[in-house]
Amino acid sequence: MSERLKSPTRRNLLKGGALLSGAALTGAALPARADDPAITNLQPWMQELGDGVDAMPYGMPSKFEAHVKRRTVEWLTADRVSSINFTPLHELDGIITPNGLCFERHHGGVAHVDPAQHRLMINGLVDKELVFTMEDIMRFPRENRVYFLECAANSGMEWRGAQLNGCQFTHGMIHNVMYTGVPLRLLLEEAGLKTNAKWLMPEGADASAMTRSIPLQKALDDCLVAFKMNGEALRPEQGYPLRLVVPGWEGNMWIKWLRRIEVGDEPWHHREETSKYTDLMENGKARRFTWEMDCKSVITNPSPQAPILHKSGHTIISGLAWSGRGTIPRVDITLDGGKNWHAARMDGPSFDKSMHRFYFEFDWDGKPLLLQSRAHDSTGYVQPTKDELRAVRGENSIYHNNGIHTWYVGENGEAENVEIS
Amino acid sequence: MSERLKSPTRRNLLKGGALLSGAALTGAALPARADDPAITNLQPWMQELGDGVDAMPYGMPSKFEAHVKRRTVEWLTADRVSSINFTPLHELDGIITPNGLCFERHHGGVAHVDPAQHRLMINGLVDKELVFTMEDIMRFPRENRVYFLECAANSGMEWRGAQLNGCQFTHGMIHNVMYTGVPLRLLLEEAGLKTNAKWLMPEGADASAMTRSIPLQKALDDCLVAFKMNGEALRPEQGYPLRLVVPGWEGNMWIKWLRRIEVGDEPWHHREETSKYTDLMENGKARRFTWEMDCKSVITNPSPQAPILHKSGHTIISGLAWSGRGTIPRVDITLDGGKNWHAARMDGPSFDKSMHRFYFEFDWDGKPLLLQSRAHDSTGYVQPTKDELRAVRGENSIYHNNGIHTWYVGENGEAENVEIS
Repeated sequence: MSERLKSPTRRNLLKGGALLSGAALTGAALPARADDPAITNLQPWMQELGDGVDAMPYGMPSKFEAHVKRRTVEWLTADRVSSINFTPLHELDGIITPNGLCFERHHGGVAHVDPAQHRLMINGLVDKELVFTMEDIMRFPRENRVYFLECAANSGMEWRGAQLNGCQFTHGMIHNVMYTGVPLRLLLEEAGLKTNAKWLMPEGADASAMTRSIPLQKALDDCLVAFKMNGEALRPEQGYPLRLVVPGWEGNMWIKWLRRIEVGDEPWHHREETSKYTDLMENGKARRFTWEMDCKSVITNPSPQAPILHKSGHTIISGLAWSGRGTIPRVDITLDGGKNWHAARMDGPSFDKSMHRFYFEFDWDGKPLLLQSRAHDSTGYVQPTKDELRAVRGENSIYHNNGIHTWYVGENGEAENVEIS
Repeated sequence: MSERLKSPTRRNLLKGGALLSGAALTGAALPARADDPAITNLQPWMQELGDGVDAMPYGMPSKFEAHVKRRTVEWLTADRVSSINFTPLHELDGIITPNGLCFERHHGGVAHVDPAQHRLMINGLVDKELVFTMEDIMRFPRENRVYFLECAANSGMEWRGAQLNGCQFTHGMIHNVMYTGVPLRLLLEEAGLKTNAKWLMPEGADASAMTRSIPLQKALDDCLVAFKMNGEALRPEQGYPLRLVVPGWEGNMWIKWLRRIEVGDEPWHHREETSKYTDLMENGKARRFTWEMDCKSVITNPSPQAPILHKSGHTIISGLAWSGRGTIPRVDITLDGGKNWHAARMDGPSFDKSMHRFYFEFDWDGKPLLLQSRAHDSTGYVQPTKDELRAVRGENSIYHNNGIHTWYVGENGEAENVEIS
């Protein structure tokens, strides 16, 4: 279990140094002020009856949270129907991404599939070609697992330098939810795999009919055919009623609106793993089949969309870390661009191939900061700098930017995206 | 980690008995039928471009999921503004309740609080009386924890017998989410507790100004002052922007729209712990301060709102179990009203004072069933029958019905709420 959190007051009293008395230490919690209109005036919500219980059979956020939404980057794609939106990471906490705020990327718009008409076919190198209805899928044993889904292009624009002004845009092609689904292994066993079966090609039912080649070993390991996210049905933009879950691997392999899985003996080399999702190296060859999402982290608060609101004193840095290869036992934080590193506090559940939440609490002296986070995963891998990545991959990468990210925070508390060597 | 799930086909082949060949064993996954219009006709969603990425900055469920909603029981309360709605447990899976489907109960309607105007005061037997803004709260260390919240009146109508037709109504005064919040302990330390401080009275900012007395020991243990649920801000009906979290304890102690915490040396004996939330015993005395929610379980599928859709063959029973005193290491299932008990399969994460998910997979012979689940918690406590509870508490209980629940399932797959001795 987590250690019990210490009061900032006590921690600082123990540390000594430039202390202020109790309340002022945090800059918070002033003694009750008799003239604060927020407490002298009876607020309207204390005086009036509010909404009844059936005002909203499906509840929505407060109107005061209207700024918490997915956003797009205008110039990023030619069209809205082959495009992407971004999770507002700076507004979230914990490790669960609420369903309505999960980023999504599609190539032919969001399909609105009628589940009664939807079918999943398994064909190719199998003993029995099969067609499943949704009711059929529900009769197989199922599992519940929390996994991140990250687009391989997440942070891709940042290869060229500090481009986008907010972690929603630099890192927001990611979400983390609990999936309910049937292990793909069980459906393949139902069909019976022929001895020369080595690869799968899942295919989507939307207008773009997305496909990827997946090696059989991964399919038989931990892939799920999922129909629920965070307890309820998949959202339409997340592939309702059925999607593939490929834990820890590139987001575009997690085929949405899953309608067919073909079993074959070699990869198909379709567009989404040749023209796209490959990175050109300096030697003229391209990295392909870069399936695993590497260990990565980002500070979500403060960040350009989430400035520090106080002048100095007790401050919380918050962020996320994840790895497609395991868990995150450790994250380091620096306030000075890498001169000094400190251990962050990991908080909450730690699941394999899931987001992890970290915090770093410190007393800010009000002077400029150069913030970075550096994650370690359970394989021992340490998140590299972008320069270290470029040294290996050259300058032409589009995908798999898991480099350490820097925010400059000024005396006014506002953060900017910067790149430092 | 969980055991790897076995294919139902293999399990049944190993068991022998009245088996059918592969596909028919599950009744699922027929060989591809050339005449199934769902696969011969090109579906509209495969032919047309769908919605663009900014159609929904805050996403919503599929229109095909419109039946998944909170519901009310018309006759239960005199008015909609002092009433309750119910979580559609039969439609959910895993252990996370999506925010929009979390049941809620209020006494003066849902307050719509402006967070900029909201204040939290701590007064009474403290060294410094304090007033916090939401920004102040954000500067204290925080935690992320998954907890169930159950109303003490959940299943209360069922004391009188099998009354309501669905687990949404018999057991739906409950939800399970990940909270982000500041340990209450840290805020109390900031104020400084006087030596004779023994009880807290949290108070809400809605029109009903709900209060309860909470013993200091619990407050200092694991209570949180929470501002997020499943990653985003609390929903208005869940107390936006601030609520108390009292892990494992009666739902009405988790004061919503939290505006004040008074520290005292004895309980206040307010309405919600005297006139309400007490149970009259046969000896004329009343149980009060029955804070802990007892170990409990319910089968969510099949259930009256979720019939079995096939005639026989491989069938999945699904349900939830929880305890205010710890985790749930074990759930037993009976198909014949208690003559024979079987171990259910626990799946997914197991957290202290959180919901747990269980499954039981079996081959249904198509004949009537009397389904029950019986949970064991980590203290060794075993969920009792209602008769066992009545023997101890008499016939006048309103609250804390954690008795074993029975569904009768007929040959047509439909379930009914029944009570058996």
